[in-house]
Amino acid sequence: MSMNSFGHLFRVTTWGESHGPALGATVDGCPPGVPVDESMLQHWLDKRRPGQNKNMTQRNEPDAVKILSGVFEGRTTGTPIQLMIENTDQRSKDYGDIADTFRPGHADITYWQKYGIRDYRGGGRSSARETAARVAAGGIAREAIKALVPGIEIKGYMVGMGELEIDRATFDWQAIDQNDFWIPQGPEVAQQWEDYLQAIRKAKDSVGGTVEVVARGVPAGLGAPVYGKLDTDLAAAMMSINAVKGVEIGEGMAAARLRGTANADEILMGDDGPEYTSNHAGGILGGISSGQDVVVRFAVKPTSSILTPRRSIRKDGTPYEVVTTGRHDPCVGIRAVPVGEAMMACVILDHLLLHRGQIGHNRGKIG
Amino acid sequence: MSMNSFGHLFRVTTWGESHGPALGATVDGCPPGVPVDESMLQHWLDKRRPGQNKNMTQRNEPDAVKILSGVFEGRTTGTPIQLMIENTDQRSKDYGDIADTFRPGHADITYWQKYGIRDYRGGGRSSARETAARVAAGGIAREAIKALVPGIEIKGYMVGMGELEIDRATFDWQAIDQNDFWIPQGPEVAQQWEDYLQAIRKAKDSVGGTVEVVARGVPAGLGAPVYGKLDTDLAAAMMSINAVKGVEIGEGMAAARLRGTANADEILMGDDGPEYTSNHAGGILGGISSGQDVVVRFAVKPTSSILTPRRSIRKDGTPYEVVTTGRHDPCVGIRAVPVGEAMMACVILDHLLLHRGQIGHNRGKIG
Amino acid sequence: MSMNSFGHLFRVTTWGESHGPALGATVDGCPPGVPVDESMLQHWLDKRRPGQNKNMTQRNEPDAVKILSGVFEGRTTGTPIQLMIENTDQRSKDYGDIADTFRPGHADITYWQKYGIRDYRGGGRSSARETAARVAAGGIAREAIKALVPGIEIKGYMVGMGELEIDRATFDWQAIDQNDFWIPQGPEVAQQWEDYLQAIRKAKDSVGGTVEVVARGVPAGLGAPVYGKLDTDLAAAMMSINAVKGVEIGEGMAAARLRGTANADEILMGDDGPEYTSNHAGGILGGISSGQDVVVRFAVKPTSSILTPRRSIRKDGTPYEVVTTGRHDPCVGIRAVPVGEAMMACVILDHLLLHRGQIGHNRGKIG
Amino acid sequence: MSMNSFGHLFRVTTWGESHGPALGATVDGCPPGVPVDESMLQHWLDKRRPGQNKNMTQRNEPDAVKILSGVFEGRTTGTPIQLMIENTDQRSKDYGDIADTFRPGHADITYWQKYGIRDYRGGGRSSARETAARVAAGGIAREAIKALVPGIEIKGYMVGMGELEIDRATFDWQAIDQNDFWIPQGPEVAQQWEDYLQAIRKAKDSVGGTVEVVARGVPAGLGAPVYGKLDTDLAAAMMSINAVKGVEIGEGMAAARLRGTANADEILMGDDGPEYTSNHAGGILGGISSGQDVVVRFAVKPTSSILTPRRSIRKDGTPYEVVTTGRHDPCVGIRAVPVGEAMMACVILDHLLLHRGQIGHNRGKIG
Repeated sequence: MSMNSFGHLFRVTTWGESHGPALGATVDGCPPGVPVDESMLQHWLDKRRPGQNKNMTQRNEPDAVKILSGVFEGRTTGTPIQLMIENTDQRSKDYGDIADTFRPGHADITYWQKYGIRDYRGGGRSSARETAARVAAGGIAREAIKALVPGIEIKGYMVGMGELEIDRATFDWQAIDQNDFWIPQGPEVAQQWEDYLQAIRKAKDSVGGTVEVVARGVPAGLGAPVYGKLDTDLAAAMMSINAVKGVEIGEGMAAARLRGTANADEILMGDDGPEYTSNHAGGILGGISSGQDVVVRFAVKPTSSILTPRRSIRKDGTPYEVVTTGRHDPCVGIRAVPVGEAMMACVILDHLLLHRGQIGHNRGKIG
Repeated sequence: MSMNSFGHLFRVTTWGESHGPALGATVDGCPPGVPVDESMLQHWLDKRRPGQNKNMTQRNEPDAVKILSGVFEGRTTGTPIQLMIENTDQRSKDYGDIADTFRPGHADITYWQKYGIRDYRGGGRSSARETAARVAAGGIAREAIKALVPGIEIKGYMVGMGELEIDRATFDWQAIDQNDFWIPQGPEVAQQWEDYLQAIRKAKDSVGGTVEVVARGVPAGLGAPVYGKLDTDLAAAMMSINAVKGVEIGEGMAAARLRGTANADEILMGDDGPEYTSNHAGGILGGISSGQDVVVRFAVKPTSSILTPRRSIRKDGTPYEVVTTGRHDPCVGIRAVPVGEAMMACVILDHLLLHRGQIGHNRGKIG
Repeated sequence: MSMNSFGHLFRVTTWGESHGPALGATVDGCPPGVPVDESMLQHWLDKRRPGQNKNMTQRNEPDAVKILSGVFEGRTTGTPIQLMIENTDQRSKDYGDIADTFRPGHADITYWQKYGIRDYRGGGRSSARETAARVAAGGIAREAIKALVPGIEIKGYMVGMGELEIDRATFDWQAIDQNDFWIPQGPEVAQQWEDYLQAIRKAKDSVGGTVEVVARGVPAGLGAPVYGKLDTDLAAAMMSINAVKGVEIGEGMAAARLRGTANADEILMGDDGPEYTSNHAGGILGGISSGQDVVVRFAVKPTSSILTPRRSIRKDGTPYEVVTTGRHDPCVGIRAVPVGEAMMACVILDHLLLHRGQIGHNRGKIG
Repeated sequence: MSMNSFGHLFRVTTWGESHGPALGATVDGCPPGVPVDESMLQHWLDKRRPGQNKNMTQRNEPDAVKILSGVFEGRTTGTPIQLMIENTDQRSKDYGDIADTFRPGHADITYWQKYGIRDYRGGGRSSARETAARVAAGGIAREAIKALVPGIEIKGYMVGMGELEIDRATFDWQAIDQNDFWIPQGPEVAQQWEDYLQAIRKAKDSVGGTVEVVARGVPAGLGAPVYGKLDTDLAAAMMSINAVKGVEIGEGMAAARLRGTANADEILMGDDGPEYTSNHAGGILGGISSGQDVVVRFAVKPTSSILTPRRSIRKDGTPYEVVTTGRHDPCVGIRAVPVGEAMMACVILDHLLLHRGQIGHNRGKIG
């Protein structure tokens, strides 16, 4: 069992540290014959890449992905695909202080306590740079899904940032790719978000965010009870993303406040099969997809690396006041959008393969 | 890979349906020499058992657990422990309607769509009775934890039910075991909860609930980044429980609304190591335990089996009005409390063993 | 990861000790809709059962298997199948000596050294009775294979016992089921084997044996390089059987003595695809099935439980002369035949499912 | 589950093709704090490297390994270690014929049948070059073992090649590293082996070989019955090596020809614990190490790539006469020696960690 792997049949293992020579993902179990090239993956990496706009850290990494194995003449061969991203922007600087101190709210202290050794440069293995490898792997998953079930669409967007929340009444699917926050809202709202975030940055602070990822067109029947449920795997996938503190399916935590009459989605018969009057379930019943949109939401905490001084200690136990001056996003939730999409793609593909392995094809007909 | 298993070194596989001859858990990887007998497990099963008070379904199962293997002369041998619970209260009745119809909000339809066959009696494999096997396995985990790290305490309680929420200002740890809702509140509050729930029952409705589970005394260093994080495994464990729609660690979804200055827990040096000024992180940083209380919360949706008629369809696609007359809890969240505790125990034990396997003992000293 | 499990998608976990209340297998990942009942499994268990003839231990266990879950109205549901065999013939006797002594060549001493506790009654977990659970699980696998790829036939037989070896020139496939040794030879040879074995029994000794298992009709393309090779999984499956000390595929150890011109199977084009001039490869090339017969062979050591005194020690280190007076087979290799068949069935089914999961259907056409 | 991974806690995933940009291994679960640098790994890679003497293919690859992650300031951090070996000697040539034909005895045909696409250059994923990644990973395992249990020594050597076999009466442990065949024999014998192999090469043929790998100093108690047995994992590890057709533990296949009186190793009490009068068991009883030398043997078939013409077919089914003119070892068994050592090291380390995880330390004392 690898602790740096996820997935059952489509299995991704990531490796690498923020400031080592490279990082990447070993992707095993991809179906053969899927058209893949580096530019397809680069598209998604560019979406996640820092330094694109002023709401992100100005670290300037090209994040160019190289395919080292598993693809031959532009198609996957069914053998492991090695995806490598070289770390090119490793500014040489004095890491002395960082080596012996712990940032509050950061993995510095727990890595030290667990291992007794840590690559402290840029957060080492705990850096959000690790998510670049996920995005690359997710790019592979997207292409494989396209080859298997052409109609599936996976889309992520922010639904909240600090005190701001989107207005679902004006939800605009087309607007998502047209603003720096990937919010389904028009340019005026995007400007408000921008102003809000700049004020936080100027206050030497950071802020959390909520991301929603939807998969449309997922066939009914994906998921394997009881511990390989589709929602179980999605919860693990999203919770494994850096800084995530909560995961919701459909109605999520709010389901606890509902009555049964309000929560259960009634079923009607449509032309192409069952239809539902609502989607409180988030497309998953008993751990198995129902054919409705699969809806996952997760909360990203505010980055703990801020310019405002925070109390902490040194390795020797003496007090230390931490001020993090490096390049850090004021809201890491923004860049978590393509990461969440990538995790959704990997989980959906994995369950498509699992279902085909055990069952072969959907078996229960309705109507 | 078994889809009905969870855990890495301490691995639990559950089996069985609601109305088959029996159900149970195969528990592998338990350390040898741990004192275990059936009465120790029965204690926790009795806590989960239906029919104990009027807030639960009146199905009357003794839920007596039998140990069939892996325990010799009162101690675990290190080989697989088979835990079996016979289903004794299988009322013979006409299941005709249930076989061909789907309850809204229930796994009936997705099991059918996935497998093309389902044991419809009492929900079959998707029944909450499966959680009895988890509770039995959790009993084993509790005893093993006690043998390994005596100070760890695991406790679950409800924090919300429908419109009700506990008042954290009057949080009373001792009161948890003294009311039918496992709420950390005095008897007056418990009475209010009871009145509220009875009103819902009389309205032929059900309601959701929120459960919090805390593990105290967990040593720093448990958890294995990046995909075997302690919070990742906890999220999967809790999301796999029937009817759970959201999982939170520490601050949870609310972390998205906080600023960095508010969210990060500052670190001070105490007599026995690092101390924190708050616990927004829920005891986990970068996927690794910090030594603070590990805090998990999950939402249980209202049961979809209610007396109020709901619209649905038959297998043949024709409309059908569902009224569920069986024995069902008005709030399944109540019985999820011991289940959440059991999952916490299993995950903590698993990570204790994993840590010992890779590291041997804590390595990074502070102070 | 469970240490008492094998298989990837079709996953079997066995549990239970020789003299506990019961033993069995938890079978997960079986395709749904496969016709299965207890009598189908009993057929194979009866084949493995002790006490059938004078070449086997006279322990008289009915070995009746019960299906506790995962089968509904005579068909598998896709959920875990629990197979239980109760231990009914647990003679009460004084185990005092056995508890504190170690039989040479037996797992007594290593279980003690590993765990510091062992169920010494009848060998506990290390008893060959564990293989009954495998045979039951193999019965499930056989039915699932039949449903997926009807033409596959799996057959085991002995090819050697002590100084005796079968004569491949007179190999008789039909004779296998007509003698007590499952040898592909006529009744005269079977009588010679019987005389030979009775002489060894009278000499208060035991003897080893070699078993060959063949799977015919396996489609080309099963197996997943590099560490999920079909031969890798077969080697693990056979080596995990009690008392097995060697595993061979096709030419096996003898391949080391051959030249390339002699060993490589030449390829011709037949009416239905490629044909081979020989089968030194045992039906597997590069870890993937070629469509030829899959041929596995394994050696079973002589049972270490014999009436001839052997030198050993007690737990306290003092010398002890071991004479094993219990009921023991003079050649455990005989009963390993149905066990080897069961393991072959489980591995083949697992790889059928794995192939379908990743690939869907054979893709490379020839001719 | 990754099909290109092996190991439980110490988990190795290899990736890469013979003629792609690079190949390597992702190593997860290594204990932290182990001193490792590239030169330590290069030592073992140089041992496996082709082109060192005239008994090997003259392909000239430096096989220089780079550590891309998981090692910081010369010590492992406990996070994934990425080992990369760039393919530098990829001669550009016309692969036209190879793309559409199948070499007898080679994975060409089965890869094609399974995947419908294959990287035919140099055998692609099925090339023995993949074993370079295992050797690099084994180098990590050796250093970790040294840090955990200093006394363990792992050594491989050839015991047979074609008609030749070593003389165990003149077994010379020191001589192993002093000849091109890693045989435990003096220079005269090595010269005989050389003459024999050159004659085979001149005859445009190849030959098989048998390799034995011994681990000395392995503590009693390693191995986890029933399907995670030490011998089960060793059998899988060795069978997964290219061209291996048989695996033996201790007495191996010959155990089938022995009587119980001859096979069981008697136990005496020595100064430091139990001692055995012989080692037919190969150091493993009931799947658990006994403290004796762990002895594994495997047969490597003769390479199928030879200059003598062999009959085969093209992808279109037409006949084709194969003559393999590339650079190929006349006996690939020689280079399998360091590969077998690497697999032994990985398996032993994995079981050291597993044992520590479940048990903590040896528990059963004798004497």
